[in-house]
Amino acid sequence: MSPIPGLQTVGLLGGGVIGGGWAARFLLNGVDVKMYDPDPEAPRKVAEVMANARRALTKLVMPALPPEGTLTFVATPEEAATDVDFVQESAPERLELKQSLLRRASAVAPPHVVFGSSTSGLLPTQMQEGMTHPERLVVGHPFNPVYLMPLVETCGGDATTEATEDRAVEVYTALGMHPLRLSKEIDGFVADRLMEALWREALWLVNDGIATAEEIDDAIRFGPGLRWSFMGTMLIYRIAGGEAGMRHFMAQFGPALKWPWTKLMDVPELTDELLDLLVAQSDAQAGPATIRELEALRDDCLISVIQGLRAADYGAGRVLDAYEKVLFDRASQTSVEPDLSGPLRLHEVTVPTEWVDYNGHMNDSRYMQLSSEGGDRFLRFIGMDAAYLASGRSFFTVESHVNYLAQAKAGDHLYVTVQLISHDDKRLRLFTEMRRADDDSLVATAEHMMLHVDTTLDKAAPADPAILATLATIAEHHTTLERPAQAGRAIGQGR
Amino acid sequence: MSPIPGLQTVGLLGGGVIGGGWAARFLLNGVDVKMYDPDPEAPRKVAEVMANARRALTKLVMPALPPEGTLTFVATPEEAATDVDFVQESAPERLELKQSLLRRASAVAPPHVVFGSSTSGLLPTQMQEGMTHPERLVVGHPFNPVYLMPLVETCGGDATTEATEDRAVEVYTALGMHPLRLSKEIDGFVADRLMEALWREALWLVNDGIATAEEIDDAIRFGPGLRWSFMGTMLIYRIAGGEAGMRHFMAQFGPALKWPWTKLMDVPELTDELLDLLVAQSDAQAGPATIRELEALRDDCLISVIQGLRAADYGAGRVLDAYEKVLFDRASQTSVEPDLSGPLRLHEVTVPTEWVDYNGHMNDSRYMQLSSEGGDRFLRFIGMDAAYLASGRSFFTVESHVNYLAQAKAGDHLYVTVQLISHDDKRLRLFTEMRRADDDSLVATAEHMMLHVDTTLDKAAPADPAILATLATIAEHHTTLERPAQAGRAIGQGR
Repeated sequence: MSPIPGLQTVGLLGGGVIGGGWAARFLLNGVDVKMYDPDPEAPRKVAEVMANARRALTKLVMPALPPEGTLTFVATPEEAATDVDFVQESAPERLELKQSLLRRASAVAPPHVVFGSSTSGLLPTQMQEGMTHPERLVVGHPFNPVYLMPLVETCGGDATTEATEDRAVEVYTALGMHPLRLSKEIDGFVADRLMEALWREALWLVNDGIATAEEIDDAIRFGPGLRWSFMGTMLIYRIAGGEAGMRHFMAQFGPALKWPWTKLMDVPELTDELLDLLVAQSDAQAGPATIRELEALRDDCLISVIQGLRAADYGAGRVLDAYEKVLFDRASQTSVEPDLSGPLRLHEVTVPTEWVDYNGHMNDSRYMQLSSEGGDRFLRFIGMDAAYLASGRSFFTVESHVNYLAQAKAGDHLYVTVQLISHDDKRLRLFTEMRRADDDSLVATAEHMMLHVDTTLDKAAPADPAILATLATIAEHHTTLERPAQAGRAIGQGR
Repeated sequence: MSPIPGLQTVGLLGGGVIGGGWAARFLLNGVDVKMYDPDPEAPRKVAEVMANARRALTKLVMPALPPEGTLTFVATPEEAATDVDFVQESAPERLELKQSLLRRASAVAPPHVVFGSSTSGLLPTQMQEGMTHPERLVVGHPFNPVYLMPLVETCGGDATTEATEDRAVEVYTALGMHPLRLSKEIDGFVADRLMEALWREALWLVNDGIATAEEIDDAIRFGPGLRWSFMGTMLIYRIAGGEAGMRHFMAQFGPALKWPWTKLMDVPELTDELLDLLVAQSDAQAGPATIRELEALRDDCLISVIQGLRAADYGAGRVLDAYEKVLFDRASQTSVEPDLSGPLRLHEVTVPTEWVDYNGHMNDSRYMQLSSEGGDRFLRFIGMDAAYLASGRSFFTVESHVNYLAQAKAGDHLYVTVQLISHDDKRLRLFTEMRRADDDSLVATAEHMMLHVDTTLDKAAPADPAILATLATIAEHHTTLERPAQAGRAIGQGR
C-alpha cells in the first residue's frame, strides 16, 4: 500500500542509470514499479543502482522511509503501462526509439495516465507524435543520481495540456524532488544548455593545453562551484554588483562579452532591451532582500556547504580541515609552559550553526562532543599520539555524565578545562568544565571514566609507564584541588 | 606578533570588495595590514567587509582565531610597500592603473618581497612591465567573498620566477586558501573562462525568452551546481560514462558538440589527439578509484552538501526539509497503535562514516547524539510538535549519563528504545537503550533528566495537560517494567 495517494504503481520504460534511478526514487517512497527494459542485464543494473540509492537516501533523510515498493520486470512496454498510475520513459536518446515506446505504451494506458520523459534534449512536440492521447506527454528531465538530485525540468510540447504538467509536478514533488517548469521547449532545455556551454569551454582549455582535466575541476569545485550549489550565476553577479544591483554589474562587466574570456564568441548583443529585461528579472528574483542580507545568506550557505564537505572529507572540506589543524597547531605553539596548579585549559571553539537545535541552543550531544574533544586534547597532552595508537594501545571511554547549566548559542566562544580526578594504571577519571570565554561563566560540566585498552586483544591493559608518570605529576597538583560539585553525581540524586 | 612565520605585515593596494576581503583574510589570521586606497570611503567599505568576515570566518572554523592584526591606512602605494613581507594588488581592472601602482610600490620594496595581483583577467606579463624586479609579480586571483572562498588561481608572467610563485602559494595556503597553479597565462585564467561561457549561454536564454534569471539560477542550484561544489564537470562526466570511463562518455556525448544544445557553436574539433589527451587526463585524475567508489564519494558529498544547506534553510536544503516533513507525516499516518508493554522503539539509524573516530569506532559523543535523538522522538510522540515549541514551551535536558558497553562501527544499523523512568508536571526522566538491529545486542545505554520550560521566561513551568495525560498513560505501563541496571548510576560507583 503506497503512502502517496493516487500513486500505487508506476510503469518505467528503460532501466539504465536514469531509469534505475527513477525505480529507486519510486520504490524507496513505497511505490510499486513495473519495469520494461529489453536488456537482459537490466535486473542486475537496476539492483546496483538500488543498492546505492538505499544507502544514500536513508543517509540523506532523518525520518524512516516507508516499506519499499515491489519491483517487477515485464516483457513489453504495453505491460509496463497496464494498471499503473504514471509512466516514466528513460530510453536511450534516439527519437524513433522513444516515439515507438511511447506509441505502444500509450495505446494501452487509460487517458488519465500521464507520461513523463527523461530526455536530456529531445523536443516533447516531436516525441508525442503518434501517441494515443498525446496531450499527456511531458518532459520530466532528471539529473544523475536521480535518487539524490532534487532538480527535474518539466516541459510540455505543442499538444501537452496544463493538467498533464500539473500531474507530473505533483508526482515528482511527492518523491522529494524540485520540479522546474519551463514555459518554452528548446533543445537541451535549460540546465544542459548551461552545462554544455561550460563543457565546450573546458574542452578548449584541454585542447589548447591551458589546463588539465583535474585543474579544470579544481577551478570549479574550490571556486564558483561552491557558490553554484545554492545560488545561480544571476544572483551571484547581482551581489557582485553591490548596492547598485544588476545594472551596475552589467555596466562593469558587460564589456567583457566582447573580450576573449572564452573561445565561445557567439554572444547576444547587449541591447537596451536585453539590459532592461535582465535588470527587471534580477530585481524580481532578489525581491525585498537588501544586498547586505544577500551577502549574509551567501556567506551562511558557503559555511554550511564547506562544513558539510568537511564531514565528507573531500574538496573544500579538506581545505578547511587542513586549515583548522594549522590554526590548532599555531595556538598550541604559542602556549606557554602548562600551569598544573588548576584545571588545564586545553580546547576552545566557536559554536557552529549546525550545533544548534530546535530550541535555539547548542544541542545536548554537542556538549558531550566538546567535552570529549577536551578529553582527547588531554590524552594528547599526556602523550597519546598517532604512534601510540598505531602500537595497539588507546583509551576508551566507558561512562560519561553531563550537567547542562546554561545555554550556548551559535557564535558563542567556549573553552574547556580538564581536571584529573583519579587514575590507576588502567583507569582514568576526568572532569571537564565548559565555560564562556567572554565572562568565564560555566555552561556545562562533564565527567568521563576511561579505560586503557590493548586494541589488538580488545582488553584492558596497563598504560605506558611514560604516560603513567605524566599522570602522576598532574595528579600531584590536581588531587589537591577542590572536588567539583557535579563529580560523581547520579541522575535522580537531589542537588 | 603574527602567528604565521615570515608574514608579519602585508601591503594591500586597493580596498574595494576584493581588497577588503584580502584585508579580512590577513587580519583575521593575525597579520598586520597597510592599506593604500585613494577612495576616501575606503575605510568605511573595508570596515563593512571586515564585519561580514569576522562573523563568517569565526563561524566557519572551529578553533579560535589568533588575535586580529592591525589595519593601518596609508597615503601612497610606496608606504604600503614599505616594511612589509608581501604585497597584494586589487585595483580596478585597468592595465595602466595596475602597472602604475606596481611600478611605484616595487620601487621601494626590497627584492625578496613578492607581489600578488588579484586581476580577474589581465596578463601578468603585461602587468610586470616597468616593475623594479618584475620577476616577483604573480597573479593570485581570488573569488568573492575572499574571506570564505578557498580558490586562488596563481599564474606567472614571462619574467616571473618559480620562487615567486612558491612564495605566493605559501602565503595563500597559510591563510587557509587553496592555490591552483596555472602553467600558462591566458585572458580570464581558468575559472572565469568557465563562468563566462555559462554566463554567455544564460544571457541567450534571457534574450530569447526561454527562461528568466530566477529559472536559470534554479536550473543551476537544484541541479548541476550541487555537484559542482565538490566535483568538476570532468569527473562528473567520467562517472556518467560508467565503468568504461571517459572514452565511453565521449563516444556517447561527443556528437552533442555538433548539436544546438547551446548557442555557443565555436567548438573545438574532437580529433583523436584531443580524445586521447582527455582520456589520459581523466584517468590520471580518477587515479585508482573504481567507478563504484567514485559514485559513493559523489553521493556522500551530495548528502553532506544538501544536509549542510538544510542547516542554512536555503536552496536544496529547503527541498530536503519539506520532503522530510512529508515523510514524517506519512509515517505518522500509517503507524499502528504503539505497544506500551515495553520500552518504545522510536528511532533507528545506520552509523555514518563521519561518526567514527581515531579508535575506529563510533565516537562517544555520537552515542549521546543517538540517545538524544531517541529522546526527541519520544517528545514528539507525547505531543511536542512545532506548534508547541512556537507557543513558548519546550523540554530542556539538564543532565545525562551514558554507559558505553560495546563498539559500533560505520555501517552498523542501530535502533533506540526509550523507557519512561519517572515524571512529574515539570520533570521527565528517560532511559534509552541503543541496540544492534541484527542481533538486538546492547551497545550503549543513556539516561536523561529533562525539565519543562517556559522559553519566553526561561523558567521551569508545568507541561501542557494533554502531554501530562499521555505521560501518565505511558507511566502506567513503564513503571511496571524492570528498572535498568544502569539507571541512576554515578561515575566511580562499583559495578
